[in-house]
Amino acid sequence: MNDAIRGKGASPPESLASPLSLPAAPLPTLRPSLALLTDRYELTMLQAALADGTAHRHCVFEVFTRRLPAGRRYGVLAGTGRVLEALPAFRFGETELAYLERAGVVDDRTLDFLRGYRFTGTITGYPEGETFFPGSPVLQVEGTFAEAVLLETLVLAILNHDSAIASAASRMTSAAVDRPVLEMGSRRTHEQAGVAAARAAVVAGFAGTSNLEAGFRYGLDTIGTAAHAFTLLHDDEPAAFASQVEAFGPGTTLLVDTYDVPRGVERAVEAAGTGLGAVRLDSGDLGALAVEVREQLDALGATDTKIVVTSDLDEHAIAGLAAAPVDVYGVGTSLVTGSGAPTCGMVYKLVARTDGAGRMQPVEKASTRKSSQGGRKAAARRLDRDGRAVEEVLVTGPDEQVVTWEPDGSEGGAEDGRLRRLHVPLVTDGAVDSRWVGAYGVANAATQHRTSRAELPRGARRLSHGDAAIPTVTWRL
Amino acid sequence: MNDAIRGKGASPPESLASPLSLPAAPLPTLRPSLALLTDRYELTMLQAALADGTAHRHCVFEVFTRRLPAGRRYGVLAGTGRVLEALPAFRFGETELAYLERAGVVDDRTLDFLRGYRFTGTITGYPEGETFFPGSPVLQVEGTFAEAVLLETLVLAILNHDSAIASAASRMTSAAVDRPVLEMGSRRTHEQAGVAAARAAVVAGFAGTSNLEAGFRYGLDTIGTAAHAFTLLHDDEPAAFASQVEAFGPGTTLLVDTYDVPRGVERAVEAAGTGLGAVRLDSGDLGALAVEVREQLDALGATDTKIVVTSDLDEHAIAGLAAAPVDVYGVGTSLVTGSGAPTCGMVYKLVARTDGAGRMQPVEKASTRKSSQGGRKAAARRLDRDGRAVEEVLVTGPDEQVVTWEPDGSEGGAEDGRLRRLHVPLVTDGAVDSRWVGAYGVANAATQHRTSRAELPRGARRLSHGDAAIPTVTWRL
Repeated sequence: MNDAIRGKGASPPESLASPLSLPAAPLPTLRPSLALLTDRYELTMLQAALADGTAHRHCVFEVFTRRLPAGRRYGVLAGTGRVLEALPAFRFGETELAYLERAGVVDDRTLDFLRGYRFTGTITGYPEGETFFPGSPVLQVEGTFAEAVLLETLVLAILNHDSAIASAASRMTSAAVDRPVLEMGSRRTHEQAGVAAARAAVVAGFAGTSNLEAGFRYGLDTIGTAAHAFTLLHDDEPAAFASQVEAFGPGTTLLVDTYDVPRGVERAVEAAGTGLGAVRLDSGDLGALAVEVREQLDALGATDTKIVVTSDLDEHAIAGLAAAPVDVYGVGTSLVTGSGAPTCGMVYKLVARTDGAGRMQPVEKASTRKSSQGGRKAAARRLDRDGRAVEEVLVTGPDEQVVTWEPDGSEGGAEDGRLRRLHVPLVTDGAVDSRWVGAYGVANAATQHRTSRAELPRGARRLSHGDAAIPTVTWRL
Repeated sequence: MNDAIRGKGASPPESLASPLSLPAAPLPTLRPSLALLTDRYELTMLQAALADGTAHRHCVFEVFTRRLPAGRRYGVLAGTGRVLEALPAFRFGETELAYLERAGVVDDRTLDFLRGYRFTGTITGYPEGETFFPGSPVLQVEGTFAEAVLLETLVLAILNHDSAIASAASRMTSAAVDRPVLEMGSRRTHEQAGVAAARAAVVAGFAGTSNLEAGFRYGLDTIGTAAHAFTLLHDDEPAAFASQVEAFGPGTTLLVDTYDVPRGVERAVEAAGTGLGAVRLDSGDLGALAVEVREQLDALGATDTKIVVTSDLDEHAIAGLAAAPVDVYGVGTSLVTGSGAPTCGMVYKLVARTDGAGRMQPVEKASTRKSSQGGRKAAARRLDRDGRAVEEVLVTGPDEQVVTWEPDGSEGGAEDGRLRRLHVPLVTDGAVDSRWVGAYGVANAATQHRTSRAELPRGARRLSHGDAAIPTVTWRL
């Protein structure tokens, strides 16, 4: 039957290039070098700066967001570990250099520089999983202009994506209180973004993911049993359930809404017995259904069988199910799209650089009211006597004073609590601090997030629109 | 000064894993196999189906969306070429198999099946770049259950992401009419999603991208000159402009809004002369600014200097600048986030499979009012006598009749126009049709999109909320 469809396919448009002129193999979809994940202007700026000598000025770039998404009370930093993992792969090999030459992007001097490029500078930042607020300098990249400017696109791409997901995910785990939330959104976002989204979700408290690659790369727990297609593949629902129980034992999760939910629940318990692990509901009015299914399961003696719900949930739907007898939430689309805020708006701004005499000078864009601020910032969170966050404190002033600043108890208001310094070292002279990468990095970030979120004022966890949970204040040394 | 910051970094939380227990090298961020970009349930379904014998039933899965994003009039299919490029990399190597075994995901029989897996079935679909409507079967994957079910997550991830971007991009190029639109959003989405987004934007009519990797992989034109950081790096604006003109000639684009726009424009023409290629405005009231800058440029004699605008544009902002003297639009955030609709909601549904006797049977989920429909569909667009699209026609019925169906002029209403069949062959018995992949695939998809969009009724290009531009009707054979 395929032959028929093939033979009668619509003719391709006449403008189609001839298949004969194609390269023999499809292009690779993934490549070992990440260096071309870069906006062209970074290389053109580099070329001009190498020519005029400014490329070697010492620079500090800061990553921060000017505002939180509308109504959000806090953001969650995620992706830092992925930035660190990406650094060693940010190298220009012969393939990349040949392309840049062929495409006429930069001149020979710049190609020579790129051939030897690796990042040898220093990166400092908030620990992954930490909460952030408008202006929080979540990452500081320090090095020559040449080496630091090249990281702009990759750093922002990772942090903007992963932090958007983690910020949404934190609202979901907050709304779910003690019930586990599972990540199932891989199909609704770019295939590699899905892996990063699963990772970011776990940073923000999710219990597991359906994404196997994320399980492999980051040691995350993976979950999943069957889709409607499995039931439809079989001649009837009892055959499908029997097959699944045979393969995975009665502790499996059976999807009971392919045909008729009450019949499905009945058949599920028939197939697995009262030791059935869980039933999954993927459609309908989940709150009302959960009540009915719970009653039916209990009546059938399956009192320990859990109820998993998974249909287009977001943090509001999760909160709305708080009183329903639901045991586990599965979230897909709204997680991977940041629940209405799919990116964070973080920027990578040059805030200080040396002048011709080698002295560090603050710099800032001045033509508009964009609230960027020149100069390197130290950052601390002020906590009250109960350990509750009160303010995000940014410390500015002469660079050498900012660099050596630390809370010493003499700051205004510190008698009412304490200051928790926010920056930690991430990369030192090009060497990555391994405690923030890989599976350990994710586990540490999840711990960091739990701690940081618990410290926020109560209002921070409300889902309704509101202002940032704490104000950002600036101290000038 | 780095030492100071490093020495005084906050202590990591006590729960941090010791860096000593980490693997020596960071985890790889990209891997050659795409096979684990898969939801776990596909493998568990496979295991149960291999055990009960249904894994070898012949199946047809269809990809479609039940609805367009709120108010959108049409969707744009993108990513098909990337699906085809990904197929050869969807293989389970020893690394992947060892993980699946270690994590206890599936049993030995399933691991053996996966070890030999490659897709040998057939894929038919709308050509990339084609417009689509609710229910349009944009992709049909046919093969055994075992081989087809494994592709669900990867196929959906690619099509949902890329089509969301292309659907937004098409509105932007439509609003820009004949002015070029450039893609600059890499920093606001996942680093690999940015590459796919650039590709999808070009499918929908964008003229180029800032993303070098997209330029490399797909032969796209890349663009970009300088950011504010370049101006701030220098002692003053004239020094920065002089350096850029020295490096790239007067035809370059100078960013004139770092300090004061009128002064910036004046200095730009001083630096490059009246042959200055373009000025870029990245902040402020772009419409009013463009008028002032145009007047100033003309007064300075730089009458051919173009004006590029790039601050948080979307299709509505582009439309709002139609009367302003703008020459080129650069779009970032709203492009890569799908301008409010970051995913497409496409699903991958089993619509037909053989029964125990080898006869093809339509199947569908029946418990709720989700508008999925059993059985394979043929698809055609009905055009009126002027070649204007009137209806999306889905043809259902006995499978052998649907497979051999083609428009023959006898269909109801066909005397008023003609039917354009929508499906083309993409993969035949596992062999990819190379005309849809790589750089040629993107060029062909862009042509397909131009043709298809031009065919839609005029109302389709309105940006205001409305219904789908044409209704989807079903014919039963």
